[in-house]
Amino acid sequence: MKKTLKIIKIGGKLIEDELKFTSFLTDFCALNEPKILIHGGGSMATKMMADLGHKTKMVGGRRVTDENGMRVTTMVYGGLINKSLVGKLQANQVNAIGLCGADGKSIISKKRPVKEVDYGFVGDIVHVNAAFIAGLLKQEIVPVFSAISCTEEGILLNTNADSIASEIAKAMSSTFRTELYYCFEKKGVLANASDEDSVIDKIDHKKYRELLKKNIISDGMLPKLQNCFEALGNGVNTVTLGNSELLKSNVQHTKIVS
Amino acid sequence: MKKTLKIIKIGGKLIEDELKFTSFLTDFCALNEPKILIHGGGSMATKMMADLGHKTKMVGGRRVTDENGMRVTTMVYGGLINKSLVGKLQANQVNAIGLCGADGKSIISKKRPVKEVDYGFVGDIVHVNAAFIAGLLKQEIVPVFSAISCTEEGILLNTNADSIASEIAKAMSSTFRTELYYCFEKKGVLANASDEDSVIDKIDHKKYRELLKKNIISDGMLPKLQNCFEALGNGVNTVTLGNSELLKSNVQHTKIVS
Repeated sequence: MKKTLKIIKIGGKLIEDELKFTSFLTDFCALNEPKILIHGGGSMATKMMADLGHKTKMVGGRRVTDENGMRVTTMVYGGLINKSLVGKLQANQVNAIGLCGADGKSIISKKRPVKEVDYGFVGDIVHVNAAFIAGLLKQEIVPVFSAISCTEEGILLNTNADSIASEIAKAMSSTFRTELYYCFEKKGVLANASDEDSVIDKIDHKKYRELLKKNIISDGMLPKLQNCFEALGNGVNTVTLGNSELLKSNVQHTKIVS
Repeated sequence: MKKTLKIIKIGGKLIEDELKFTSFLTDFCALNEPKILIHGGGSMATKMMADLGHKTKMVGGRRVTDENGMRVTTMVYGGLINKSLVGKLQANQVNAIGLCGADGKSIISKKRPVKEVDYGFVGDIVHVNAAFIAGLLKQEIVPVFSAISCTEEGILLNTNADSIASEIAKAMSSTFRTELYYCFEKKGVLANASDEDSVIDKIDHKKYRELLKKNIISDGMLPKLQNCFEALGNGVNTVTLGNSELLKSNVQHTKIVS
């Protein structure tokens, strides 16, 4: 039987909330299974851009990563957040290693092609080096990935952290039973957007179609759920959506199953 | 017979000089032996401190690393320089991994005790995880270390890059024949400070005492040479001092031998 591997993605907002983040890290460190952490950090990068007097260009609600933006992303994601996180895990006796996609050629991407919009230094993942990651896990080392991938030509690219998490989960599913966790602000997918406690505990394909028909899934949640079902269709066993407490037992969350 | 391992330390000034740095990287990538790169980045960190409106405090010519300073060090050394360097090595088909001392508990330090001066977040190395580093080398992965170590309590500390290089070299010398290289502005140790070509090609203990007696070694070079002899006394085979061309054959440099 395959060993279970937990792949957990956290957002920048959680990292900035010291109390919640400390509690999350305690839960993360207590997991006995092999595990991987993936982090974003968008709001901290935006603040650093402003502190340095650079403007963050947005097109249609999406960030454009220019040269300054990529430098700041590399500093903030790849350095400040990633290495501080590794330090915190080491303090909790979890032997972690902080990585971006360039390290060990772990996450190879292609620059997003320019159509209507040039998103700049933004990458779409083409390959995950599962053997390298498995090698670290075998040594009981916990990989911590920042949301940066790398082209075959060695160019660092800003990359959606949700996508990094799902691509890693898919790639690792040939050797592990993979559980993917998305940690965000809500307790899960809500049946009623104005009721924070109306968490739908389980969504399978049938339920998903039903929710779509009833127009219950909010705009922001739609790509997240599509991403989840895409992962399930490619070897991932379960996807769990929840807030910073999602690793605790007996806490509301949404489990996505195929 | 032990395999040779080359450990090369480069300074921030070289990294900022695009032409020289590209040429250095070509030489580094062409080395067939197992190799480790260690980088500083002091001037880039100082510039980033100024760009963010922070003052860099100096006491007796030495930098004091306050909380802002450590954040900037983590961003600039651990993120910007380290990850860009890994990208450049990958572009040259060298499979590198960018690390700070927290990663894999690779370089453990203690905060420098406060005597007359509190240097802040500055660490003195107490342990190098040679087994972890050897494991990477065995997989033909090239470790690239930024000048950051980590306490047992997970606190990141600014650490002298020369010391990181020599401590790694010493720790690896039980399994490898270790050659340590310090890349700086000069072609080597100069017999005449005003003649850049007056490079002393070889210094052993006897020659060192002779140079000391004649007062030929300049103030800045003294701790560097002490560091070299200390490394040689602890298992390191040779130490080479030279400029960005020191990996080329037929180029002037100073070789330190015991």
